[in-house]
Amino acid sequence: MQLTLDLKNTKSFLSDAEFAAYQPKLADAAKTLREGTGKGNAFLGWRELPENYDRDEFARIKKAAKKIQGDSKVFVVIGIGGSYLGARAAIEFLKSPQYNLLPKNTPDIFFTGNNLSPDAVREVITLIGERDFSVNVISKSGTTTEPAVVFRIFRELLEKRYGKDGAAKRIYATTDHARGALKTLADAQGYETFVVPDDIGGRYSVLTAVGLLPIAVAGCDINALMAGAHAAMTELAKPGMDNPAWAYAACRNALLEKGKRIEILACYDPAFRFMAEWWKQLYGESEGKDGTGIFPASVDLTADLHSMGQYIQDGARVLMETVVHIGRSSEKLAVPYDEGNLDGLNFLAGKDLYEIGEQAFLGTVLAHVDGGVPNMVIRIPARDEASLGELIYFFEYACGLSGYTLGVNPFDQPGVEAYKKNMFALLGKPGYEDRRAALAARL
Amino acid sequence: MQLTLDLKNTKSFLSDAEFAAYQPKLADAAKTLREGTGKGNAFLGWRELPENYDRDEFARIKKAAKKIQGDSKVFVVIGIGGSYLGARAAIEFLKSPQYNLLPKNTPDIFFTGNNLSPDAVREVITLIGERDFSVNVISKSGTTTEPAVVFRIFRELLEKRYGKDGAAKRIYATTDHARGALKTLADAQGYETFVVPDDIGGRYSVLTAVGLLPIAVAGCDINALMAGAHAAMTELAKPGMDNPAWAYAACRNALLEKGKRIEILACYDPAFRFMAEWWKQLYGESEGKDGTGIFPASVDLTADLHSMGQYIQDGARVLMETVVHIGRSSEKLAVPYDEGNLDGLNFLAGKDLYEIGEQAFLGTVLAHVDGGVPNMVIRIPARDEASLGELIYFFEYACGLSGYTLGVNPFDQPGVEAYKKNMFALLGKPGYEDRRAALAARL
Repeated sequence: MQLTLDLKNTKSFLSDAEFAAYQPKLADAAKTLREGTGKGNAFLGWRELPENYDRDEFARIKKAAKKIQGDSKVFVVIGIGGSYLGARAAIEFLKSPQYNLLPKNTPDIFFTGNNLSPDAVREVITLIGERDFSVNVISKSGTTTEPAVVFRIFRELLEKRYGKDGAAKRIYATTDHARGALKTLADAQGYETFVVPDDIGGRYSVLTAVGLLPIAVAGCDINALMAGAHAAMTELAKPGMDNPAWAYAACRNALLEKGKRIEILACYDPAFRFMAEWWKQLYGESEGKDGTGIFPASVDLTADLHSMGQYIQDGARVLMETVVHIGRSSEKLAVPYDEGNLDGLNFLAGKDLYEIGEQAFLGTVLAHVDGGVPNMVIRIPARDEASLGELIYFFEYACGLSGYTLGVNPFDQPGVEAYKKNMFALLGKPGYEDRRAALAARL
Repeated sequence: MQLTLDLKNTKSFLSDAEFAAYQPKLADAAKTLREGTGKGNAFLGWRELPENYDRDEFARIKKAAKKIQGDSKVFVVIGIGGSYLGARAAIEFLKSPQYNLLPKNTPDIFFTGNNLSPDAVREVITLIGERDFSVNVISKSGTTTEPAVVFRIFRELLEKRYGKDGAAKRIYATTDHARGALKTLADAQGYETFVVPDDIGGRYSVLTAVGLLPIAVAGCDINALMAGAHAAMTELAKPGMDNPAWAYAACRNALLEKGKRIEILACYDPAFRFMAEWWKQLYGESEGKDGTGIFPASVDLTADLHSMGQYIQDGARVLMETVVHIGRSSEKLAVPYDEGNLDGLNFLAGKDLYEIGEQAFLGTVLAHVDGGVPNMVIRIPARDEASLGELIYFFEYACGLSGYTLGVNPFDQPGVEAYKKNMFALLGKPGYEDRRAALAARL
């Protein structure tokens, strides 16, 4: 594993003893995870996934990706939450947030079914235009409202264009292995199916078919991604506070105890934006319960040093910051020399942008520490598949540890049901009549 | 003004008396803003801007936009912070986050100079390719590192392609009216210039040339935008707690007093994402100082109900939520009827997506209130220029009121300098030698 964690810039906030005091808690949490004896233990399938994943399905994913790359100019991915964020984050990180605009020989990829905006859904239809397209619908049950209604729309579109049989060859369903609305439909219609495992929750599913199919269609190397995750899995199984996952989980919990109740995830590469969204789901949904949990936020640096930077430096002192630092890019772009030097920046002439960014990073960490914000720094070598695999597994495993250390069930999400029940009631879903009447009275 | 504020769903958290107790504070804050007697009073130019803006420059902006639309396939906007977020936010909101991908007869627009990633800057160069392009460099001083070094790169590119004279006709500098590196360069080279007014800070500058030129190039109606802002200006000048700006400022401060120290801005249209980023800068930078201020965060719904939703519903009870609700879209997209009805969603067949989203919104507000999160709802009629103008002015004016109510200077940003000083020192900028030595010892 090449990922490292640097806690040097938390030392003025947390004594060695305060940090070390978490050792037994982490040993417990690691044991609970390993032995599967804790809350939510029906959802630990992600833990050994990089070792145990289904090789046959993995080969089918790569084959399907190849077919889609060959017969489709557009790939529409329908999913929400864990069935959306991981794949989008990985593709933006490995390729670009502007992936669709860039010259390439892989399909454009549009994510939909993650909102109820008619404008946004219509736009995807416009963007497909007359081009050949395929659809990946991702839903364990097949009944989650947003993806299900949007899938109805795209299925109709496909069937109109290609006929029922032709459409069936262009629909890929990632769903339950045996049960549920989508699995039943897929089997009846002959869609190729991939599996959302029973023992892996949505936010932990990016390394299953849920994430892997879109990532592979984008032309990313999913072998290297899994190899990176495997390296992290092996390394992070070792006990001790020098294990970066133990250390990260300990540090953030210790800082929470000291009133740092917001964690800001920062990165200096704009391609990381959606990885931060994925991280917010992972940590927010795992720990944000029982009236507790660190509130996860994110910034895109250096851009946001000129927006949220003021708050981080001087606002309410309730923040901790975690920086994901990416090693030197192979891309070189030097600052041109300018005879006039009106901007006074000739002292930077010939310097590569990355080098300037590096000093911005180093200077910012110290400025924030001086301002009262402890900084954790996670370093990965590059914007590549192996690094991403390590980072994903690191965050997943540390999240399990951290949740158990905090004392919550890191693998459930009971709060997500509340809005759904209200929405169903207001929409007149059969069986929700009583709730509907109660809500109507309040509106 | 058509914008409204609904505080019904804060009533169970805040008594009428607690809310009314803020009336004198708001009266003071409004008086201070009106009379220009408070902290930061050198930066109140935004207050009467919708009335007083320079008509000649406004006409020049429209003329320049027309020229750029005619001679450029790509428009590159170089700026950071307030010289970036407002224009990007407005274009994404009014057109689309996928503006560049959509069929249109206006140029692609790329924002750069807001980071130090060589990958990201190179990508813009790749995306321009052989197409004709123009550049808008936006910087009051012309010496802010990120935009200044990136402008050197794009200026060189333009001069190589079009010659020095040809490049000069394709560079538009939005900068100080008289002084500074960029103004001096622009005058020497003959670039057309637009003004960053002395009395308007970056985060309040979207309705100046800073925002208006890129917004006009994208084909948006900047007359309607200013008219919307003007309507809000007129309406919000009226005193009283039924003034939505007074009420918003009072409510969020009263809730902060009760321990709600994070405000989440939510919207059900994904086109709003960068408006939320703009709002975070506006409020975070205005109030996040002196160790206080509400921490601004944002979510993109319904997507994030399946990620941050769990935290909002059940996490630490330190949250308030503000929803920006947009009226019915002209776009209709009905859920198809499905004979098989395996997903059980035929009760939604024939319903428009917007209608389903509307019930999701109503149900979510009540769910969050039941979970302990007070909800404020701001309603605007549509994703159009007039509504956006109202919303921008509303947030700006309410921010001034809110900052004064909190007791901070809402118009400075002293904390933004800290990282810059460290960065300059580490980069070896002349004059920073002592700091450099001190930092080196810590690294």
